[in-house]
Amino acid sequence: MDNQLESLIKRLARLPGLGPRSARRAVLFLLQNRDRMMLPLAEELGNVAKAVRNCAECGNLDNADICALCRDDKRDRRVLCVVEDVGDLWAMERAAVYRGIYHVLGGTLSAIDGRGPAELNIDRLIARASNDVDEVILALSATVEGQTTAHYLHERLSSLPLEVTRLAHGVPVGGELDYLDDGTLAQAMKARSKLGS
Amino acid sequence: MDNQLESLIKRLARLPGLGPRSARRAVLFLLQNRDRMMLPLAEELGNVAKAVRNCAECGNLDNADICALCRDDKRDRRVLCVVEDVGDLWAMERAAVYRGIYHVLGGTLSAIDGRGPAELNIDRLIARASNDVDEVILALSATVEGQTTAHYLHERLSSLPLEVTRLAHGVPVGGELDYLDDGTLAQAMKARSKLGS
Repeated sequence: MDNQLESLIKRLARLPGLGPRSARRAVLFLLQNRDRMMLPLAEELGNVAKAVRNCAECGNLDNADICALCRDDKRDRRVLCVVEDVGDLWAMERAAVYRGIYHVLGGTLSAIDGRGPAELNIDRLIARASNDVDEVILALSATVEGQTTAHYLHERLSSLPLEVTRLAHGVPVGGELDYLDDGTLAQAMKARSKLGS
Repeated sequence: MDNQLESLIKRLARLPGLGPRSARRAVLFLLQNRDRMMLPLAEELGNVAKAVRNCAECGNLDNADICALCRDDKRDRRVLCVVEDVGDLWAMERAAVYRGIYHVLGGTLSAIDGRGPAELNIDRLIARASNDVDEVILALSATVEGQTTAHYLHERLSSLPLEVTRLAHGVPVGGELDYLDDGTLAQAMKARSKLGS
């Protein structure tokens, strides 16, 4: 195979969710649609790489220094939702149940990966939370590392006059009990609620 | 989400094998690796889109008018392997069992999709096959359309002094009989061979 082609396929195959086989199919598809897909994709990738940056306020991705969410006057600035990364922020926005503002941590504390508090966007969180915020929602993963991080943040935030909350654990919508792990089931049982309430 | 970002994600999601979720993950991964992945990918896509073309001889993709396989003196020019598309040619080359040259048809005959003989690279095949070729191997899919195309090509090639062969049908290596369809099993039974031969 042509060297240029091979190098392109290898690079695409390194994207998450793609492998050598799907990278080959993607490249053939792109070559069949050069003007409509391949050249625009090249241009968009270049433009986004140059223009998109992290919001100086919350860490979200945007092509302005302060992101559209932080600029939005209709968002409630008294509620701050802490997420691990921008993908989680996007997931929250797609769910469309939250009207406050965000704070992107940039990961979780992890002894294995050597990520301590200094590696995460925590000082900025404390500063923002000290500024007229009533509630900090810790929307972190229900993993050991996510919960360790939540515990640490809770401690750091405890001196401030605000509430610290976390997402509910329980049975996922559409989930069957039979397939749930014991931990989830135990949490769902403990946090059970009255019908009709 | 930022418009530029959204447009990039939508475009990536249209690639075969990707969907909205994997496109979002891919873009976040690329943004975390701008210099090492995103900008090189943009450049390679643009370069390949401009440089890579179909070989004037066989239809393979290459950045020269005549592809590396057709230029290779060590390939046997008396055997011509007909494949549907460049992906199939690559698959044959990965298997590394064939040392002849190729001819890329550009698809199969298909009444449903309105592809007749004129839409495929057939006239050029007849011309090439007329030029000192001993065997034409029809390496087409074992589908109705692939076999219709094979039948049609066999007829077109029948006046030439050469052999027309097709790939064997049978049990795929690693395949379990229990999971095979009846058609494959019937073909494998009909084409059974003596042990030790």
